[in-house]
Amino acid sequence: MELLKERIRKDGVVRGTDVLKVDSFLNHQMDIALFEEIGREFRRLFADCGVNKILTIEASGIGIACITAQFFHCPVVFAKKSQTKNIAGAVYTTKVESFTHGKVYDVIVAKQFLGPEDKVLIIDDFLANGAALEGLIDLVHQAGAQLAGAGIVVEKAFQPGGARLRAQGVRVESLAKIKSMSEKTGVEFEED
Amino acid sequence: MELLKERIRKDGVVRGTDVLKVDSFLNHQMDIALFEEIGREFRRLFADCGVNKILTIEASGIGIACITAQFFHCPVVFAKKSQTKNIAGAVYTTKVESFTHGKVYDVIVAKQFLGPEDKVLIIDDFLANGAALEGLIDLVHQAGAQLAGAGIVVEKAFQPGGARLRAQGVRVESLAKIKSMSEKTGVEFEED
Repeated sequence: MELLKERIRKDGVVRGTDVLKVDSFLNHQMDIALFEEIGREFRRLFADCGVNKILTIEASGIGIACITAQFFHCPVVFAKKSQTKNIAGAVYTTKVESFTHGKVYDVIVAKQFLGPEDKVLIIDDFLANGAALEGLIDLVHQAGAQLAGAGIVVEKAFQPGGARLRAQGVRVESLAKIKSMSEKTGVEFEED
Repeated sequence: MELLKERIRKDGVVRGTDVLKVDSFLNHQMDIALFEEIGREFRRLFADCGVNKILTIEASGIGIACITAQFFHCPVVFAKKSQTKNIAGAVYTTKVESFTHGKVYDVIVAKQFLGPEDKVLIIDDFLANGAALEGLIDLVHQAGAQLAGAGIVVEKAFQPGGARLRAQGVRVESLAKIKSMSEKTGVEFEED
């Protein structure tokens, strides 16, 4: 998605060789007009897949998922990172290691919101090691739902998550795939 | 907002006299068509206020804030509940006590995303004790930004947050104000 790559080149900030800060438009301040173009592209990619539910994980996936859902006319469910007393009843649960925060989360979805009748599109802002995406896929499988695939905004293709999940047969569509990056030379994208 | 009240009557679940579960449409599974009507109503209420930024707090405010932002044609900033290594540089920080989770969070916004040039509308899903909203208002003040007001989806008007903040001169607009609730009789709303 050229518009997104241009934005990353313009406003993304590289730290070292593996941290890309896109918090001016993607995951702290959020450019909703850009999100609309992202949602439109996910719709184009996953049209005719019968998607009737979008699944994401708090917090930075939620905005993109909600705007994308407008193009699919379906609800969004966001997986929560810890159990609160306000979620009563049965939940699907999985464990996700966050490399950003350096800890392991319990990630849950209430059973009533994901089931065999669902054709699920997973949406998230980043794919790197694939831990979050694998956790979400595990929740989809536990629910007996079908997985249409995963729509990712930025994939760090030099980290192993995307390749591993595609090898498992998961359809992963990433709108910007980063081949490599450095503070000196900036971001290099894979060709589409 | 009658559509919202109807939905709360239909799908909200009361636990005891102070917990209202609306996770089937508001803060776990999210009904995006309803969010569009909520955003339209916030726009009607805060039209001509010169809002150029929407501020919310992770996680359940984000979806509503993003859909609402489409009506204001402005970006959303979400305050984060703890500092991660991916937020470098200067941040505004405040402390918020979560009664739901029973702990106190550091809540932060990067300084570059909130400043004196901003006219801020705060959006959140719930207002009860007012701790989260007070924290967000503190961040707006620290930034030297102007506060247009706060748009709240569900206010538990029998808890003290809304009255206290209105007494301080904050414009708080709540789309559904709950006067009282119980498992037997359900939810009773304040008259508009």
